[in-house]
Amino acid sequence: MNGAHALIQTLADAGIEVVFTNPGTSEMHFVAALDDEPRLRAVLALFEGVATGAADGYARMAGKPAATLLHLGCGLGNGLANLHNARKGKVPVLNIVGDHATHHVQYDAQLQSDIETVARNVSPGFVRTSQSTAALAQDAVDALVAARGLPGQVATLVLPADVSWGEGGLPCAAPPASPAPPADAQTVAQIAELVRSGEPVALLLGGQALLEPGLVAAARIAAQAGVKLLAECFPTRMERGAGLPAVERIAYLAELASVQLAPFRHLLLVDAKSPVSFFAYPGRQSDLVPEGCTVHTLASPAQDAVASLQALAAALGASGEAAALQPARAPGRPRGRLTAPKVCKAVGHLLPERAIVVDEAITSGLMLGVMTAGSPRHDLITLTGGAIGQGLPSAVGAAIACPDRPVIALVGDGSSMYTIQALWTMAREGLNVTAIIFNNASYSVLNVELERVGAAGGGGPKARAQLDLQGPALNFAQLAQGMGVHAVRADTAEGFCRAFEYALARPGPHLIEALVPESLAGAKRRVLPWMLRALPSLPPAVALAIKRKIAP
Amino acid sequence: MNGAHALIQTLADAGIEVVFTNPGTSEMHFVAALDDEPRLRAVLALFEGVATGAADGYARMAGKPAATLLHLGCGLGNGLANLHNARKGKVPVLNIVGDHATHHVQYDAQLQSDIETVARNVSPGFVRTSQSTAALAQDAVDALVAARGLPGQVATLVLPADVSWGEGGLPCAAPPASPAPPADAQTVAQIAELVRSGEPVALLLGGQALLEPGLVAAARIAAQAGVKLLAECFPTRMERGAGLPAVERIAYLAELASVQLAPFRHLLLVDAKSPVSFFAYPGRQSDLVPEGCTVHTLASPAQDAVASLQALAAALGASGEAAALQPARAPGRPRGRLTAPKVCKAVGHLLPERAIVVDEAITSGLMLGVMTAGSPRHDLITLTGGAIGQGLPSAVGAAIACPDRPVIALVGDGSSMYTIQALWTMAREGLNVTAIIFNNASYSVLNVELERVGAAGGGGPKARAQLDLQGPALNFAQLAQGMGVHAVRADTAEGFCRAFEYALARPGPHLIEALVPESLAGAKRRVLPWMLRALPSLPPAVALAIKRKIAP
Repeated sequence: MNGAHALIQTLADAGIEVVFTNPGTSEMHFVAALDDEPRLRAVLALFEGVATGAADGYARMAGKPAATLLHLGCGLGNGLANLHNARKGKVPVLNIVGDHATHHVQYDAQLQSDIETVARNVSPGFVRTSQSTAALAQDAVDALVAARGLPGQVATLVLPADVSWGEGGLPCAAPPASPAPPADAQTVAQIAELVRSGEPVALLLGGQALLEPGLVAAARIAAQAGVKLLAECFPTRMERGAGLPAVERIAYLAELASVQLAPFRHLLLVDAKSPVSFFAYPGRQSDLVPEGCTVHTLASPAQDAVASLQALAAALGASGEAAALQPARAPGRPRGRLTAPKVCKAVGHLLPERAIVVDEAITSGLMLGVMTAGSPRHDLITLTGGAIGQGLPSAVGAAIACPDRPVIALVGDGSSMYTIQALWTMAREGLNVTAIIFNNASYSVLNVELERVGAAGGGGPKARAQLDLQGPALNFAQLAQGMGVHAVRADTAEGFCRAFEYALARPGPHLIEALVPESLAGAKRRVLPWMLRALPSLPPAVALAIKRKIAP
Repeated sequence: MNGAHALIQTLADAGIEVVFTNPGTSEMHFVAALDDEPRLRAVLALFEGVATGAADGYARMAGKPAATLLHLGCGLGNGLANLHNARKGKVPVLNIVGDHATHHVQYDAQLQSDIETVARNVSPGFVRTSQSTAALAQDAVDALVAARGLPGQVATLVLPADVSWGEGGLPCAAPPASPAPPADAQTVAQIAELVRSGEPVALLLGGQALLEPGLVAAARIAAQAGVKLLAECFPTRMERGAGLPAVERIAYLAELASVQLAPFRHLLLVDAKSPVSFFAYPGRQSDLVPEGCTVHTLASPAQDAVASLQALAAALGASGEAAALQPARAPGRPRGRLTAPKVCKAVGHLLPERAIVVDEAITSGLMLGVMTAGSPRHDLITLTGGAIGQGLPSAVGAAIACPDRPVIALVGDGSSMYTIQALWTMAREGLNVTAIIFNNASYSVLNVELERVGAAGGGGPKARAQLDLQGPALNFAQLAQGMGVHAVRADTAEGFCRAFEYALARPGPHLIEALVPESLAGAKRRVLPWMLRALPSLPPAVALAIKRKIAP
């Protein structure tokens, strides 16, 4: 048996069901071996960032890793940003990177580069180049064990072509996953003491603590002891909606987060990082923990967060408390000219049962949390590492992990363009994804950031040109159609609702391009001079119609 | 003056004219400073691979580096593949990567990652994180000096946000570029001896040797001494066409390259690497130098290749020889159903004066060299590092470097999808690029490679599915239109020629999607069963038309 066959059988035996691929020549033996293993599904992407982002989204929903198959250092580079998001989200990924045959490396051929060096950026805990066909299956098991441990991580296995094609491969079995320990009794007792002290306390929940069991345990503690429940700013996966305990997320803007955190004297971390500003700004603090507030760790990412919360609840005598649950309360149907908040409202109004919501909408999604708070129970996946281009690939992975659940991805125009190729994989695999692209024709968040870093007046024309996506305006419906995805554009709330209902009712992927100028006033200010200049060259009836529209 | 202003002024003083950008928050001070430096043009890309590929293409044609502006480790990751191509092509790039403020790094915020580690993959010779605003301008000068030396390289300057926004910046001047030494007299004399020995000798030209002065010197040597002129397989930039010496490129397929190299007892390298196989294959040699042939270096990449060739010509008494020049001889106008060779023929037939041809057409471009050999003089840019997704970005950079020259990029369908966002920048900047996409609906080269690595029978259906780009078929004309680029599809040679003439006659970017099944027989074999299955469900007239077409 050659190495590739042994590897693939080992992966399948260990429960790996999907490999997200963008292979090249050095991976052809892996590709050729796929047909002999019916348990492993290979999903092709046209760009590596789609493959890695899909592996991330898949693992968040499946609760176990997928594999990737990438082509040498350059393929890994292309996939790096979404592996970064997985790393920051503590998501397990078994990252397989093909390499030249071991004897070929010395010749420094065109595609030769230092793969391990790049891999360390996203796989600080496990990078290994398999040295022999005989050792390959064990290397894969070691990588898998590293990936799926607590905290989950991206484990990178570099696979030289000759190790893959060589004979003498032998599949080997992965050990069962070992359970993580909960917080020790002393820590629980100390923290219970703090909670009982009557000082203002917040529980900051992250990672594993944001699924139902953790949320319920935390909500019992809150009900009994009056502690505040907070969630980290960008959860890996969060269960929410009607019937689940509601938790407030820390705001992205440091200014707002400081307000949220100001009341507390104690911040208790449960599989979460102590909150810091996303970026640094001149003259402002990066650490968001207020003066006089101390930070304590109930459960680290390497511990069992749910058991730790349950232990704390028990220590407080809260195990029998009734957790406060979010009542069902969807917003009304929006009407009139489409805006970003109306898109969020429409999503809240129409959200189906058991949806998976992928949020990479940046500024346009500000109202999404509020609008969907009382919608039917759903999962939320967010941009854990800040590397934009995560939304569409993540939706691919989530849809493959949960084929019977609707996936709704809300993505900013700028973000979507990093990995727009994901649409093709959605069409190819017939995935039940509705991609909603907020087209406001700008890197809107950067307009905010340009002000925040202190650039007086928001910069000159060259600076502002770096943030706008007009000239030419992108047409996402056309892009989607060019990749085989059904797509429509909407500029009214009514049109958007109709399109969303249509998409939810029909299998396969759909794209809805939401045309949402940030504000009517802003859009007019920007578009008016151009329009007025263009008017004389237009047919009189058209010019009149535009005049009525833009200058009523 | 803040660091950003000092940096930008230093770059402009040193002759840097363009920065290819995809900035984020940590680069906002750099962005805000752009308006104060009219000499620096900022060109926005929607994806970092476009920015880095454009910097590569720009430098190849401008003969001096552009800068990039990327956003932290993830932005660098996204740009890595095309920086790899630049590195392998010895192309100078000043790679500027924004980072968190120095005091923010300790907090391991969402976007924090080890940038220097990633950068070493493409910038082994120069990676530096600027430590203070006062030192920034000198750091930039050091990076620039490293980038533009011989051999050219990618020099990476990591720019922390506070170094950029801090006050106390002071521009500084870059030293003039120091000339590279030619081969020493003894080497020239020894090699002249070899050439005179009468044994079969080939000159393998690369890098700087493939522009007119080097070609002419080499052709004089060939005329006098009967040596063979070869060019490396993937030249960074090669001047060719009517009126220039013709040089045969080493073939991509090792099997063919071996035949080309077999006659020679001596191979003389001139700014070129000793030829090796692109990939390794089971049971085949990676080193393409035949048994009994010895390799000698006339000029290394760190030496002046042109002066070295001229010295060799002088030593041989060949300085006054007439170089054999390629006569003007364009192919005829192709007719009938469009195929990949007919596209190449049409390009050869219609190629305008002083065109820049970017070749990333992989299998579809096999006939391009032959078909354009006698076309008007042009520059050829190729895929130096094997990391696909280089063609369209490279065309962006070439068009910005040479606004008065037509750029014609021939790109495979698979390749183009890695950096398809380049089309938007072409439209935004109104670049004179004609992008020709060969749509054969497959990773065609991998079908060849699957056979070559020895996968019996070309793999099963799962393996083959990894190589095909059908289901859904991509529509590149729609993709282009969605990004504001004029586009048409052609499936006849007549239609292609008309579209190409139209594009060449009108400014701004154009895309022509060439619908080219690899071979009619191959396409039929693949499509026929599906077609026949589909026929009963189609309207009778359509079914009849298809039947006539596919089974005459």
